[in-house]
Amino acid sequence: MIVLFTDFGLAGPYTGQVLAVLQREAPAVPAVSLFADAPAGMPKPSAYLLAAYAAWFPPGAVFLAVVDPGVGGPRGALIAEADGRCYVGPDNGLFELLLRRSATQRCWEIAWQPPALSASFHGRDLFAPVAARLAIGQAASRLGKPVAPMRKPSWPDDLAEIVYIDHYGNAMTGLRGAAVPAAARVAGVAPAATFSAVAEGEAFWYVNSNGLVEIAVNRGRADRVLGLAVGTPVSIA
Amino acid sequence: MIVLFTDFGLAGPYTGQVLAVLQREAPAVPAVSLFADAPAGMPKPSAYLLAAYAAWFPPGAVFLAVVDPGVGGPRGALIAEADGRCYVGPDNGLFELLLRRSATQRCWEIAWQPPALSASFHGRDLFAPVAARLAIGQAASRLGKPVAPMRKPSWPDDLAEIVYIDHYGNAMTGLRGAAVPAAARVAGVAPAATFSAVAEGEAFWYVNSNGLVEIAVNRGRADRVLGLAVGTPVSIA
Amino acid sequence: MIVLFTDFGLAGPYTGQVLAVLQREAPAVPAVSLFADAPAGMPKPSAYLLAAYAAWFPPGAVFLAVVDPGVGGPRGALIAEADGRCYVGPDNGLFELLLRRSATQRCWEIAWQPPALSASFHGRDLFAPVAARLAIGQAASRLGKPVAPMRKPSWPDDLAEIVYIDHYGNAMTGLRGAAVPAAARVAGVAPAATFSAVAEGEAFWYVNSNGLVEIAVNRGRADRVLGLAVGTPVSIA
Repeated sequence: MIVLFTDFGLAGPYTGQVLAVLQREAPAVPAVSLFADAPAGMPKPSAYLLAAYAAWFPPGAVFLAVVDPGVGGPRGALIAEADGRCYVGPDNGLFELLLRRSATQRCWEIAWQPPALSASFHGRDLFAPVAARLAIGQAASRLGKPVAPMRKPSWPDDLAEIVYIDHYGNAMTGLRGAAVPAAARVAGVAPAATFSAVAEGEAFWYVNSNGLVEIAVNRGRADRVLGLAVGTPVSIA
Repeated sequence: MIVLFTDFGLAGPYTGQVLAVLQREAPAVPAVSLFADAPAGMPKPSAYLLAAYAAWFPPGAVFLAVVDPGVGGPRGALIAEADGRCYVGPDNGLFELLLRRSATQRCWEIAWQPPALSASFHGRDLFAPVAARLAIGQAASRLGKPVAPMRKPSWPDDLAEIVYIDHYGNAMTGLRGAAVPAAARVAGVAPAATFSAVAEGEAFWYVNSNGLVEIAVNRGRADRVLGLAVGTPVSIA
Repeated sequence: MIVLFTDFGLAGPYTGQVLAVLQREAPAVPAVSLFADAPAGMPKPSAYLLAAYAAWFPPGAVFLAVVDPGVGGPRGALIAEADGRCYVGPDNGLFELLLRRSATQRCWEIAWQPPALSASFHGRDLFAPVAARLAIGQAASRLGKPVAPMRKPSWPDDLAEIVYIDHYGNAMTGLRGAAVPAAARVAGVAPAATFSAVAEGEAFWYVNSNGLVEIAVNRGRADRVLGLAVGTPVSIA
């Protein structure tokens, strides 16, 4: 399976063109979009989101992961293999957390060259064909050269910021559940086991189904009620 | 075919994870998303929408229908079979109208248990695997125990409220065409056969392609022009 | 491959019903949505967008292209074949630019009739079944009668207006790169090779990966910074 993690949006032309490339190059491999609305142009919060959600997929999955504000500039192009999953995308820190958390990891700078490479859409022209080739069984070592990826040692293991606002207005942090004491207040709100455990309109935090600390309001939008957006710092107290 | 009717949104992680589960459990069965923006956390308007749109699909379709504000609480988990179609989702009234309108119906409380069940995402962990199993031919009777579902006798047969605002700003009601006299005014506006039958900027109502009374503005957004939102009551006069 | 170019939106019921029809009528043909958010009800800007993006697909692709404000009225229903690609949709100018730019073109008025045709959703009831039939190899000449399509001679070869705002807030014009001098200012902004060539927050224009002149802001939203929307005229100076 090829899993898309991007900031492309779904409705516009980018995801569709990428899916067309994958269909052409790896027609027998199913492709699903996991996130098409990762924080736009922001590899740092995206890295925490990707690490949390990629872990849910079984080994063997190939991730096409593109949050790429530096496209067309000098940033590298990476294949990463970590704990049996493959990742293809820009070398800008997007893979920092999943590399840091994995037991095994190897990286390659992409050497494969497409017949035509646009300046602004490497997702379509470079990363998608490489992901398709990996998904049909080509070895990473044939598509790239071993490389030490850009690392971001200053990024914390868990990020006390909002990294994603979901369709309901729930606000995901870059904190894993284990990083927060069970009774702590996060962004000023107390924990609860689930939505129906608090009154309507009440805010709470919980550990979501992919292990991230998430702030929600029962039958309301936490982003509006609490004024949260991607990048908002959250206190733990 | 597996048909998704949810309030998950498409771009975020929920629909993608559900599609990944369906792909893994029923790889030969195509899945399409009918609604990913059903009224968020509102089973009542969603029930009128689901009943109107499910009827368009041929018998044999399996609906994964999840609008589930009570997830993690005591609400039941249901398989419903009605007029040859199967529905999997929370037992919270979401299936009330389609059950009421069907000639034949049987329901089962889901007994099948997943290896791991999160508190907040039964769509992925419980309902999707069950829908996949039904779609590949497992009998509902092997996945659950016969049950009388929660019924909502106080909900009317047709709902004089807005139940959905579409991408164009058209406002669907929970009223079927036959429930409204052909010459009546709905929400203050007169009927017309189609968009081009009224002047630009003019509001009208018509029976949409799935049988619901819908309020629209030719080359405009009815939601903004008339101040309509999900839950807005509509008059019939 | 069947490629969808519509203003239906993705989350609501329209794209899902169309995909269900395609799946039923042409189950072996993959379908991808290229645009689901073409300018709503606006065939003119959509025509420039379609011509630019369709050219990226290989010959043999079948486009289901529906931006159809006149649905239910007297406008025709068209199959167009141009440079080896097929297009199915309303005869309202949507195919004007791709016809004008193609070396070969033939058109047919659709004669095939569906068992049931709603007044408001020809995308589902008429255009999708016809696109599916073309995609599985039926001849256009068996589905329609040769016709001269509606032409729009007053529409320019390149349109100095915004035709699309993408997910990042970048604003695409209806101008192809060759229509603008390389050093010109477009909408008051200077050209740059790529995002990272300008300072953060700075606006520039470039030729995008499908050949259209596009106005962007490095790490910002050009639509908000410059007040651009679909239909905004752009100066070239």
